[in-house]
Amino acid sequence: MSNLFVKTLREDPVEAEVASHKLLVRAGYIRRQAPGIYAWLPLGLRVLAKVEAVVRDEMNRIGGQEVRFPALLPAEPYQASGRWTDYGPNMFRLRDRRQTDMVLAPTHEEVFTLLVKDMCSSYKDLPLVIYQIQTKYRDEARPRAGLLRGREFIMKDAYSFDLDESGLDRAYDDQRRAYQRIFDRLGLDVVIVSAMSGAMGGSRSEEFLYPTPIGEDTYVRSAGGYAANVEAVSTVAPPGRPIDGLPPARVEPTPNTTTIDSLVDAANRDQPRADGQAWTAADTLKNVVVAVTRPGGGRELAVVGVPGDREVDMTRLAAALFPSEVEPAADEDFARHPELVRGYIGPQILGVNAVASADAVAPVSAGSVASGDAVAPVSPGSVASGDAVAPVSAGSVASADAVAPVSADPADRAAADDSAAEAGPAGAVPYFLDPRVVAGTVWITGANRAGHHVFGLVAGRDFAAAGQPGQPIVDAAEVRAGDLAPDGSGPLEMARGIELGHIFQLGRKYAEALDLKVLDRNGKRTTVVMGSYGVGVTRSVAAVAEKFHDDRGLIWPAHLAPAHVHVVATGKDPGVFTAAAALADALEESGLEVLYDDRLRESAGVKFADAELLGVPYILVVGRGLASGLVEFRDRASGAITDLPLHDAAAQVAKTVDAALARGAAAG
Amino acid sequence: MSNLFVKTLREDPVEAEVASHKLLVRAGYIRRQAPGIYAWLPLGLRVLAKVEAVVRDEMNRIGGQEVRFPALLPAEPYQASGRWTDYGPNMFRLRDRRQTDMVLAPTHEEVFTLLVKDMCSSYKDLPLVIYQIQTKYRDEARPRAGLLRGREFIMKDAYSFDLDESGLDRAYDDQRRAYQRIFDRLGLDVVIVSAMSGAMGGSRSEEFLYPTPIGEDTYVRSAGGYAANVEAVSTVAPPGRPIDGLPPARVEPTPNTTTIDSLVDAANRDQPRADGQAWTAADTLKNVVVAVTRPGGGRELAVVGVPGDREVDMTRLAAALFPSEVEPAADEDFARHPELVRGYIGPQILGVNAVASADAVAPVSAGSVASGDAVAPVSPGSVASGDAVAPVSAGSVASADAVAPVSADPADRAAADDSAAEAGPAGAVPYFLDPRVVAGTVWITGANRAGHHVFGLVAGRDFAAAGQPGQPIVDAAEVRAGDLAPDGSGPLEMARGIELGHIFQLGRKYAEALDLKVLDRNGKRTTVVMGSYGVGVTRSVAAVAEKFHDDRGLIWPAHLAPAHVHVVATGKDPGVFTAAAALADALEESGLEVLYDDRLRESAGVKFADAELLGVPYILVVGRGLASGLVEFRDRASGAITDLPLHDAAAQVAKTVDAALARGAAAG
Repeated sequence: MSNLFVKTLREDPVEAEVASHKLLVRAGYIRRQAPGIYAWLPLGLRVLAKVEAVVRDEMNRIGGQEVRFPALLPAEPYQASGRWTDYGPNMFRLRDRRQTDMVLAPTHEEVFTLLVKDMCSSYKDLPLVIYQIQTKYRDEARPRAGLLRGREFIMKDAYSFDLDESGLDRAYDDQRRAYQRIFDRLGLDVVIVSAMSGAMGGSRSEEFLYPTPIGEDTYVRSAGGYAANVEAVSTVAPPGRPIDGLPPARVEPTPNTTTIDSLVDAANRDQPRADGQAWTAADTLKNVVVAVTRPGGGRELAVVGVPGDREVDMTRLAAALFPSEVEPAADEDFARHPELVRGYIGPQILGVNAVASADAVAPVSAGSVASGDAVAPVSPGSVASGDAVAPVSAGSVASADAVAPVSADPADRAAADDSAAEAGPAGAVPYFLDPRVVAGTVWITGANRAGHHVFGLVAGRDFAAAGQPGQPIVDAAEVRAGDLAPDGSGPLEMARGIELGHIFQLGRKYAEALDLKVLDRNGKRTTVVMGSYGVGVTRSVAAVAEKFHDDRGLIWPAHLAPAHVHVVATGKDPGVFTAAAALADALEESGLEVLYDDRLRESAGVKFADAELLGVPYILVVGRGLASGLVEFRDRASGAITDLPLHDAAAQVAKTVDAALARGAAAG
Repeated sequence: MSNLFVKTLREDPVEAEVASHKLLVRAGYIRRQAPGIYAWLPLGLRVLAKVEAVVRDEMNRIGGQEVRFPALLPAEPYQASGRWTDYGPNMFRLRDRRQTDMVLAPTHEEVFTLLVKDMCSSYKDLPLVIYQIQTKYRDEARPRAGLLRGREFIMKDAYSFDLDESGLDRAYDDQRRAYQRIFDRLGLDVVIVSAMSGAMGGSRSEEFLYPTPIGEDTYVRSAGGYAANVEAVSTVAPPGRPIDGLPPARVEPTPNTTTIDSLVDAANRDQPRADGQAWTAADTLKNVVVAVTRPGGGRELAVVGVPGDREVDMTRLAAALFPSEVEPAADEDFARHPELVRGYIGPQILGVNAVASADAVAPVSAGSVASGDAVAPVSPGSVASGDAVAPVSAGSVASADAVAPVSADPADRAAADDSAAEAGPAGAVPYFLDPRVVAGTVWITGANRAGHHVFGLVAGRDFAAAGQPGQPIVDAAEVRAGDLAPDGSGPLEMARGIELGHIFQLGRKYAEALDLKVLDRNGKRTTVVMGSYGVGVTRSVAAVAEKFHDDRGLIWPAHLAPAHVHVVATGKDPGVFTAAAALADALEESGLEVLYDDRLRESAGVKFADAELLGVPYILVVGRGLASGLVEFRDRASGAITDLPLHDAAAQVAKTVDAALARGAAAG
């Protein structure tokens, strides 16, 4: 300790919010260099190496072959796959001295694909699993929590290459089992959650989450075994209801009702329900305006309609609209769209509903005050009204090109085609609907005039219902505890976790974009089927620290610790230091890794506090007991203290450590 | 081999010039991703890991503590040290999403300094040696030779921190010995050469070169033990000679003499020497025009005067003028300087010589034809002439600021101060002189008029001599075999090598720039003394390949090889494959790393060719001999072939390999 390059801190770093961040910095394992960018100090590097070794071992066990790609790569393959655009500002980009566009790779699908294309030409070269443990870059908008969300981080990324889907399934299952063993060996009880909404189609994708309240990922699970990332939860749409016989919609004055709560109050006061029940937020249709920025640039507004008792979950919305980015609309956005009357927005003027229905009631020009008893479209040519409104046919949807995100990525293209459907006539703001808004549901919603709402607006009659042609579903409403699992396995409960691993069936996406084909058994060129599989290695170090600590410091499992035994010499007696040094030597000779606190000037209190902060699992104190031939053995995790005879201490400690190491090795 | 991710190539890659590049690509060890940027394939990664382990081991042995810094760093520390500017286009730069300037670090002096500043505050924290094995970036103008000059490469960089120079000397010597052991263990007989010209002052700096004709570095050595990088060789200036009594200079017509050869011929024909000897190139003063680009931009011309029998060595000139970059002047440069008459340039109008000497013979305006028998300055206010010219006093040197490179680096500043001295009056092109041009030497040189040269121009009388006040020496003339070593150890011989390591006493340069101080024993804040020590790790892999190969492929030393034994099964007999597989297993069980060529479809010829290309040091062939209970043992290096009885083959091979591994471990 007198020579070790470490400096412990008694105070938490200012910006640190989570235990792993605080403790890894305070204990001198890592040091911040820039937002989301850390240097590894000697103790940290030892833990990192041990975690890497576990990952490497399990990759090798399933036949993975290790390679290492550069971090700095030409932009070209990323342009071919579309990720150059899709990643937007999340990718670090630069130009070299010849003005060639380069990237710091966030992951390496493209260049692995190209390498295999270069090296493999036949089915005989497959199946193939190659991986690397390598530094990755992502220019996060909000790097946080130390190693948990960094901009430079270490990842294990593996890629599988197979001739067909059954091969991919095997490779995927191999990785899935390897991941289970990896996290077992790291002592982390992970939850495997589905990361792909059913709506997105057949490919499998799962995340390995370490459950903790400080995790950034929200996931759900049901008692029946369903578990999914909250972005992947699809809503079970209720069945449609009959429309015939529903009363016509009517616009009513509802002054000062720009919030759902105030609207519900006003409705119960001024427009009580015919059946005597009270209106609730669930009776209202909330229309939330968001700004959507496409990867290539181009910011435009869209409106998302959800039942008024739910919020729009921006994370779910972002996942649904990926690769576009979304954020709440700003004042300037509203300024450019005077037809969007804040607090009083209704679907009648949005998306496909904005198509003029020439034979509907005469449109009233904007700014004119319509009568209170009929739906009053606000702008000429904009929307039909009342009971004359017909759901708009798919044929009336404007050209998809007008709003489709541009992407070379087939999976993204599918999403783009979906979102293209949001298009109304040129100029109309696109409209997305929650799947619960099925045909025949009846809503109180904005009348697109300040101080007015429309009552009795019927989905599928007065505006297009979710899932009707031209009306895209976006499953972006918040998921709540008690919601039903989509697989029928019962009500959901919510939890948070840290995403440590992600396995993904890529299918033919990259192979098609980069033309990776091999000759099959019949001599025919066939596109290779791929999977990609990531483990956040530096993030796993943080997760281990999150799990194994207390309020005094870190508590490493023996097989991941920077040292097995921390020998502390206390007091001023030179005999103590001589005995402690000899003990440390003896422990090292028996194959253990030893940290020896030989500092003469520090008090026993400082040394104990440092030992507890550093978190070496076993602490041997050589001090006053030495006069009686005893040393003190402390178990950092349990706090148990035992006296050991000095002459036998090394042997006994070695036995304890070996047993702990064996447990660590046996996991997984 | 049937599963291994490798593809051997029979043809050399198009761009490859050197053996290591050709063979590492052909044998499937590395694959190019962009100019100077390579991916490591499984076999390559194994060799790389073994080389890294040797370096790590030797760093740990001298008490180095391993850390790992990010590659992506904020620009700020590099701006503080001046390297942000000094590195020019050699540094990869980028901006993050918040427009913060970032760099991909070429080396890490700044952030190591800042880390130590953050962690250490007292002499008790020193001495300290920390190092990393880490990916570095340098945007080379001409990446070449595969791993030998890359843009992304792995380097071991260590930094020492001491209280005083004697501590630095100890740290430096530790590293020096560690480097000797590292290269011994890699099997590379390196030459240690001085990398710092005596003129630059006291700091020590040495390079470890692997001697090979394909190396990019030229170095010299003398039989007496002197060895230096050619950039570091300083010329021993001859003593000055008496000026009194030397005849006046005279301008003579020398039509069509724009080359030294043609000038010497014309001189011998038309202006024979008084003593009957022949003029030689050594009697002429050649003035070479170069363009100097300062790190902050700003390209200007300079002229370097050297004896006409020597070329200007642009590498030496670049080293002398670092951090400025130099290149030969282009036509456009000459177009902007009509006073520089190509082929007829003389020092009279350059640098300090351009100062008008009011009481000298009347200047002649440019373009006028001067008489043949007197020195004719070409432009008014420009230069004095003939015997009236007095060496220019230091006081006449223009402000140093006008030309000094801007740099925060004290070492660079010293160089800048030197080069500042080149300044003449505003507008005059700076002039540098070779140290051989001492006072009293007599020259034939350009008369600054087309078709004219001046004869009998005397340094120190007609123009300032090297080393005279205001006239900077630049030691940039080529070094030639037979030149005398500056330490008096005899004539030099020339050689080429690959720079594998560089150790450097930084002194207080970075600590001062970044304010790294600690309290000394007296409680006084004192600036820390630093050293930096680099090993090119990926380059060392290439050097090993350069040394250990033949025309059929690589020949790895056992302790660096991707496997110890290559088992080859030949023919179609299933019994052969069964026996070979069992043999491979037996070898692995005895702890050896085995590559087993189990391919059924490849011919024995292809398998042997592949085995020789891959370069595993021992090859075991299981084939026809199996019927007689024999397998064939081949030593890749010597080509020796022995038959071994199958039943004893594993044991005998293990013994041979173990002996080879022991030799590898014993080196260094």
